[in-house]
Amino acid sequence: MRNDGRQINELRKVVIETNYIKHPEGSVLISMGDTKVICSASIEDRVPPFLRGQGKGWVTAEYSMLPRATEQRTIRESSKGKVSGRTMEIQRLIGRALRSVIDLSKLGERTVWIDCDVIQADGGTRTASITGAFVALSLAMEKAFTAKKIKEWPITDYLAAISVGIDEKHGEILDLNYKEDSTAKVDMNVVMTGSYEFVELQGTGEEATYSKDQLHKMLELAEDGITELAMLQKEALGKTAERFK
Amino acid sequence: MRNDGRQINELRKVVIETNYIKHPEGSVLISMGDTKVICSASIEDRVPPFLRGQGKGWVTAEYSMLPRATEQRTIRESSKGKVSGRTMEIQRLIGRALRSVIDLSKLGERTVWIDCDVIQADGGTRTASITGAFVALSLAMEKAFTAKKIKEWPITDYLAAISVGIDEKHGEILDLNYKEDSTAKVDMNVVMTGSYEFVELQGTGEEATYSKDQLHKMLELAEDGITELAMLQKEALGKTAERFK
Amino acid sequence: MRNDGRQINELRKVVIETNYIKHPEGSVLISMGDTKVICSASIEDRVPPFLRGQGKGWVTAEYSMLPRATEQRTIRESSKGKVSGRTMEIQRLIGRALRSVIDLSKLGERTVWIDCDVIQADGGTRTASITGAFVALSLAMEKAFTAKKIKEWPITDYLAAISVGIDEKHGEILDLNYKEDSTAKVDMNVVMTGSYEFVELQGTGEEATYSKDQLHKMLELAEDGITELAMLQKEALGKTAERFK
Amino acid sequence: MRNDGRQINELRKVVIETNYIKHPEGSVLISMGDTKVICSASIEDRVPPFLRGQGKGWVTAEYSMLPRATEQRTIRESSKGKVSGRTMEIQRLIGRALRSVIDLSKLGERTVWIDCDVIQADGGTRTASITGAFVALSLAMEKAFTAKKIKEWPITDYLAAISVGIDEKHGEILDLNYKEDSTAKVDMNVVMTGSYEFVELQGTGEEATYSKDQLHKMLELAEDGITELAMLQKEALGKTAERFK
Amino acid sequence: MRNDGRQINELRKVVIETNYIKHPEGSVLISMGDTKVICSASIEDRVPPFLRGQGKGWVTAEYSMLPRATEQRTIRESSKGKVSGRTMEIQRLIGRALRSVIDLSKLGERTVWIDCDVIQADGGTRTASITGAFVALSLAMEKAFTAKKIKEWPITDYLAAISVGIDEKHGEILDLNYKEDSTAKVDMNVVMTGSYEFVELQGTGEEATYSKDQLHKMLELAEDGITELAMLQKEALGKTAERFK
Amino acid sequence: MRNDGRQINELRKVVIETNYIKHPEGSVLISMGDTKVICSASIEDRVPPFLRGQGKGWVTAEYSMLPRATEQRTIRESSKGKVSGRTMEIQRLIGRALRSVIDLSKLGERTVWIDCDVIQADGGTRTASITGAFVALSLAMEKAFTAKKIKEWPITDYLAAISVGIDEKHGEILDLNYKEDSTAKVDMNVVMTGSYEFVELQGTGEEATYSKDQLHKMLELAEDGITELAMLQKEALGKTAERFK
Repeated sequence: MRNDGRQINELRKVVIETNYIKHPEGSVLISMGDTKVICSASIEDRVPPFLRGQGKGWVTAEYSMLPRATEQRTIRESSKGKVSGRTMEIQRLIGRALRSVIDLSKLGERTVWIDCDVIQADGGTRTASITGAFVALSLAMEKAFTAKKIKEWPITDYLAAISVGIDEKHGEILDLNYKEDSTAKVDMNVVMTGSYEFVELQGTGEEATYSKDQLHKMLELAEDGITELAMLQKEALGKTAERFK
Repeated sequence: MRNDGRQINELRKVVIETNYIKHPEGSVLISMGDTKVICSASIEDRVPPFLRGQGKGWVTAEYSMLPRATEQRTIRESSKGKVSGRTMEIQRLIGRALRSVIDLSKLGERTVWIDCDVIQADGGTRTASITGAFVALSLAMEKAFTAKKIKEWPITDYLAAISVGIDEKHGEILDLNYKEDSTAKVDMNVVMTGSYEFVELQGTGEEATYSKDQLHKMLELAEDGITELAMLQKEALGKTAERFK
Repeated sequence: MRNDGRQINELRKVVIETNYIKHPEGSVLISMGDTKVICSASIEDRVPPFLRGQGKGWVTAEYSMLPRATEQRTIRESSKGKVSGRTMEIQRLIGRALRSVIDLSKLGERTVWIDCDVIQADGGTRTASITGAFVALSLAMEKAFTAKKIKEWPITDYLAAISVGIDEKHGEILDLNYKEDSTAKVDMNVVMTGSYEFVELQGTGEEATYSKDQLHKMLELAEDGITELAMLQKEALGKTAERFK
Repeated sequence: MRNDGRQINELRKVVIETNYIKHPEGSVLISMGDTKVICSASIEDRVPPFLRGQGKGWVTAEYSMLPRATEQRTIRESSKGKVSGRTMEIQRLIGRALRSVIDLSKLGERTVWIDCDVIQADGGTRTASITGAFVALSLAMEKAFTAKKIKEWPITDYLAAISVGIDEKHGEILDLNYKEDSTAKVDMNVVMTGSYEFVELQGTGEEATYSKDQLHKMLELAEDGITELAMLQKEALGKTAERFK
Repeated sequence: MRNDGRQINELRKVVIETNYIKHPEGSVLISMGDTKVICSASIEDRVPPFLRGQGKGWVTAEYSMLPRATEQRTIRESSKGKVSGRTMEIQRLIGRALRSVIDLSKLGERTVWIDCDVIQADGGTRTASITGAFVALSLAMEKAFTAKKIKEWPITDYLAAISVGIDEKHGEILDLNYKEDSTAKVDMNVVMTGSYEFVELQGTGEEATYSKDQLHKMLELAEDGITELAMLQKEALGKTAERFK
Repeated sequence: MRNDGRQINELRKVVIETNYIKHPEGSVLISMGDTKVICSASIEDRVPPFLRGQGKGWVTAEYSMLPRATEQRTIRESSKGKVSGRTMEIQRLIGRALRSVIDLSKLGERTVWIDCDVIQADGGTRTASITGAFVALSLAMEKAFTAKKIKEWPITDYLAAISVGIDEKHGEILDLNYKEDSTAKVDMNVVMTGSYEFVELQGTGEEATYSKDQLHKMLELAEDGITELAMLQKEALGKTAERFK
C-alpha cells in the first residue's frame, strides 16, 4: 500500500469542474487528489507572426503556480523578472501536446491561448494541466463551432497525460503524489491520445537509470491511467463528446 | 437602479470562504459579486534586511491576476519580465493597509507574505483583496498564536476596504462593478478600521474633478460598506473573532 | 514653531524659474525650500497606440531623482534595470493630475512628455513636480498655440499640489519637509484645480490611522496652500496667464 | 537511401578531438557530420548554496550556439537579455544526464561546469553535446584524480546520446541531420549508459503521434548508435578509459 | 570663423559653480557653452568586493542625461531597463580618468561615487563631465581631509579633458559644439594631467580616417585647451588648490 | 626578451584560416598566438530602421567569449541577462572600424552582421577580432559581388588592428599577450588602414599616464605590426586581394 493507501495502478480522485470561470471561452478546475489547476482556453483572432497569411491557427500554453500552491512559498516569476526553465519546459510541453490532436487548418487564423494556473500542488501538475487543458480547449472549440466561427470540428482525438515512476519500495507506480515524486528514482510523463498513440514520452532518471523492462511496466500503467482519464474527460464534456467520432 | 439592479448604497453579494487552499497558514476565497480573489497568508521566520535585529516583524503583499481573469486576456507579468505600475501600486497599498492594524513588535522577527491572486475580475479587485487578506492574516495569526509562536495577539482592529465613485447617472455609488468603474468619472478607494478610522483614502478623477461635497457623500457610503464588511469578516473568523476586544 | 521656524499653515519659500533649459518646449526649475525639481514638457507629434486615429492627444509623465539628490546616495534605476514601485506611482500620479485640466481633443494627435527630475530633495518632491509641471506644460502649450499648431487653448484651469500631514507635536501641518515627513504618522497629498475641485486625494497612515475630523483639518490647510501656489504659477506664467479665463 | 546517402541505422562520421582549447580542465571538439560542438569541463572549488556543507559536488551545464552556427543567423541570447526555453531545456537535460553517471559524493564540494558551444549546427546538437561533454568531463576528472584532488574515481559508466525519429519516406531512422529533423513527424532523443540503461527518453510528436511498435523500433536503432558512440568515446579517452571497469 | 564665431583654438565660455547641490560631499555645475553638467562626488565607507581587505579605495563614475537635455527627447535608460553602450563607455572613461590622478591607497577602504548628470547638452558632455568631476572629487577630498578621515592628501595632479576634431571647412578645431560634432569626420577626446601627461586618448574616424600629421595638430590644440581648463579648475578650487604641489 | 621570447617589435604567430564554418557568407578562424577568434560575416537583405529608404547599407558587429576562453571561467552574458560594458565597447569599436573602409552606398540596403566569438583568449582579442573580421567581411563581399548582388566592389582599403603598450621592464612593446597586458601600465589599441591612416586610436593609462614621446614610440611599433598583418590578410584573401587597387 502506498503512502496515501492507493494501489500501485490506482489514480487519485479526479474531478473536472467545467466553466469554472466566466470570461474564458472554455475553462475547467481539474483536481487530481490535492493537485488543483485552473485551465482556461482563450481564443484570439490572430496568429503569431510566423504563421500569418497561411490560413491556419495556433495553440500555445502558459503555466504558472500561485506562490503558495506549494508547501514552501515560492517567489513569483513576475517578481524575479524571468520565467524559470522548469516553467518553460512545462508550457512548451502543454502546447505541443494539444497541437497533436487539433487540425490547425480548421481553426482559421486564430490563436488559442491555454492558461494553466496551479492553485494547489501535490505532484503531477503538468499532467493534470494537459488533461484539464484538453477539456478547456474542447469547450472553447464547442463555443466557436456553435457560433459558426469555425466551420469544421477541429479536434481529432482525446488527449490525456499521466505520470508514472519507479519507487524504491513499490517499484513501478501510477500517478505519483508530491511525496512519492520527490523520492522516486525515475519520473516519467506520458501523453497519449484516446487511441493509445504516444504524443510525448519523457522519462528521466535524476541521478539514476532504468532498464527496458522497467520502461515497459511503466508504459502499461500509463495506458491504464490514460483510459480512465479519457472516460472522465468524456463525461465532463457532455454533449460536446459526441463531436468526437 | 444600477446596471445590476442594486441600490446606490448596496454592496454586491459577499462570500468569504476560509481555508480555501491547504498549504498557507491562512487562506480565503473572497467573492464580491463576480470578483473572486484567493488571499493567502504565509509566515516566514525572518525579516527583510532593513529590519534585522530589531525584534519586530513585517507584513508585505503581492497581487496578481490570472491572465483570463479579465474580459480580454492580459499578458502575464512574468512573460513581460516586469511588474506593471498598477500592480506595484496595488501591492504596496495592501501591505501598508494591513500594517496599520498589526502590532509588528508582537510578531517577532517574522514576515507575513500576503498573496492576493484574482481568479475572476469584475471591478474592485484591490478592495476585495484587502478585505480578504485581513481574514487570511487573522487566520495565520490564530495558528501562530495557538502554537505559541506568537505570545500576544498582534492584530489591533478590523480592517476592510471598499470602492466608491461618481457615476453620470446615479451620482455617488458604493462598490462599483467593472462596467460602472470604467465609466465613472471619479474612483475612490477607502480603507478603514473597524473603529471607522481612515487608513487609506485614494480618490482619483481621471480627466475629471470632484467637489468637497461629493467627497463627503462618497465617504458616507464607504462607511456603510465598511460596517457591513467588518460584520462578514467577524462571521468568517468564527472563534478567532473573540480575540479582538 | 516647526523645525524650520514655520507656522503650521506656512509654505516653504517657493521659486519658479521658467525656461530653465533650452531644448524643451516648456521648462521650469521649481524650488520649494530645499526641494528642487527640473520640470520639462516636450511635444511629440504622435500618440501612443491605444489613441491612434482618434484625433486626440495624450499627456504622460516621468519622474526621477539624481542619485545624490538625497542625503544618502540612491542607486540609479537605470543601473538596477527597473523602475521602482514608488517612481511608478509618482509618475502615474503626475500624468493623471495634468490630464484632468487639459482638453485632450484640443491637443490634436500629439503627446506631451512631462519630465520631472529632482536635483535636490527635501520632502514634497511629487507635489513640487506637479506644481512645476503644470507651468512647464502651460509654457509648451503657449508655444504650440502661438505657432498655431494648436487651434484652441487646451488648458481648462490651474492645477497645483501640496502635501499635508499629522505630526506628533504640531498636529496637522502644511508642506512637510523631509524631517517632518519621515516622522509624520499621516501623509496626505492633495492635487486641486484653481477652482478648488479635487483631482487627487491620497492620504496614507503608515502603521497609523486618522479620523474624519483630522481629514477635514488637513483639507483646509491644503486649500490654503493651493491658493498660494496658484498665485505663484500665475506670476510665473506672465502673459500666458491671460489665456486662462 | 537517405538524403546524405546513409542507411537508416547509420551514424554520421563522428570525430572527437580532445583538449581542443587550453584553459579548461577538460575539453573536446566533437563533430557528428557537419554538427560541431566545443564541450568544456571547468572545475570550481565550491558548490551551489543548496548543497553547501553536505560534502558532495555538483555537475551543471550550459549550452549555446554561435549566431551563425545556423543557416539563418539567430539573435544572441545575451542581446535579447534572456535565455530561450529551448536553451534551458537542453542545458537542464545535459546536466541531468551527466549527473546520472557520476558519484557526486566522490567529487567533494566542487562544481563541474559543462559548457557546450555549438559552432556549426546540422541537427542533433543536444545529443552531440552530451556525448562530447561526457568525454570532457572524464578528462577533467582524470586531471583532478591524477592531481589527487579527488580520491576515488567518480564516474560510474559511459554515457552517450543519440537522436532517432520517424520519417515519411524511410520510417524509423538513426541520427537525423537538420533536413531530416525538420521534416520528421517524430523526434526522439535517447540518453543511455554503456550498460544500456536509460537515463533520458524524450519522444515528441510535433503535430503527430506514434505507436508502441514504432517506439520499439526507434529504441533499437538508438541502442545501436549508443554502442558505436561509446566505443568512440573509449578511443578518445585513451588511458583514462582504463579507469572504467 | 566657426558657426558660433569662435577661433579654431578657442574654448567655449567655461563656468564652474562649486557646491551646487547640498547633499554630496563635493559638487559642481560645470557649463561649457550650452553644455551643462551637474557633477557630484559621494563618499561611501566601503569598497567593492574585489578590493575588500586591501586597505585601498576606489573611484567609480556614473553618467546620465536628462531625457530633454537633447534637442530630441531621448528615452530614459531606466524605462528601457538597460544602460546603453554609449553610457557605459562614458562612465568607464570618467572613472578610469579620475583614478589616474588619485593615490587609492591614501583613500582608505572608501569608494567615491562620481555622478555626472547632463541637464543640457550641446556637444562635449563627456569631457565636461571629467573636467567638472575632477573639481567635485577634489572638494569631497578636501572635506574628508579636513575632517581627518583621510590622513594624506590623495590627489596627485590636475586632470581635465577636452574634445578636438577635424572639420571639412576649418580643419582641426578645439572644443566641438553639437553641430560641429555631428558633421566632423574625426572626433577625438583627450584627457590630460596638469603636467601634460596623457591619461586617455580616444580618436575615432566614423566612416573616415586621419593621418599622423592631423593627429599631431589635434594634440596641440588639446594641450592648449587643457592648460586653460586646469587654470579654471584652480580658481574654482580656491584654497583647496594649495594642496596640489 | 619578453616572457614568451619575443622581441619588443615582434608579433605573435598569426594564422588566418578562411571559410572556417560553412553557413556564413564569409568566415575565418584567426589565431594570434594562443588567442583564437571565429569571425563571421552574415549578409541580411535589410537595414536598421534609421537607414531605411536611403539606398545604403550598414555594417554592425557583435563580440563574445566562450565562458572558458579565459583562465577563470566567466559567466555567460546570456545568463546574466545583460551585455557588459566591456563587450559593448568592443563591439561598437569593431563595427565603427569596419565601416571606415567600406562604401556603404555600394552595399545597397543590406546589413552585414559581423560576429566575433573568442574561443580561446590570451590578450589582444579585440584587435584580432578586427583583423579577422576584415577578412570575413571581404570574403562575404566577394560572394555577393560574384553573385552580382552588389554591383561595385565596396571595400576601399585594407584594415587591421594591433595592441601596443608600455611595460615596466621592456618599455614600449608590440602585440601584448595576456600576462603582459595585465601588468602593462599603458594599453593602446590602434586600428589603421593599409595606407597607414588612423581609424581608431585608444590609449589608456589605468592608474597611470604617458608622455607624448612614449605615444610616438608606440605608434611606430603599431605601424610595423599593421604592415605585417595587412600582408597576411592579403595572402589569406587570395584572388579577392586583386579587387583592392
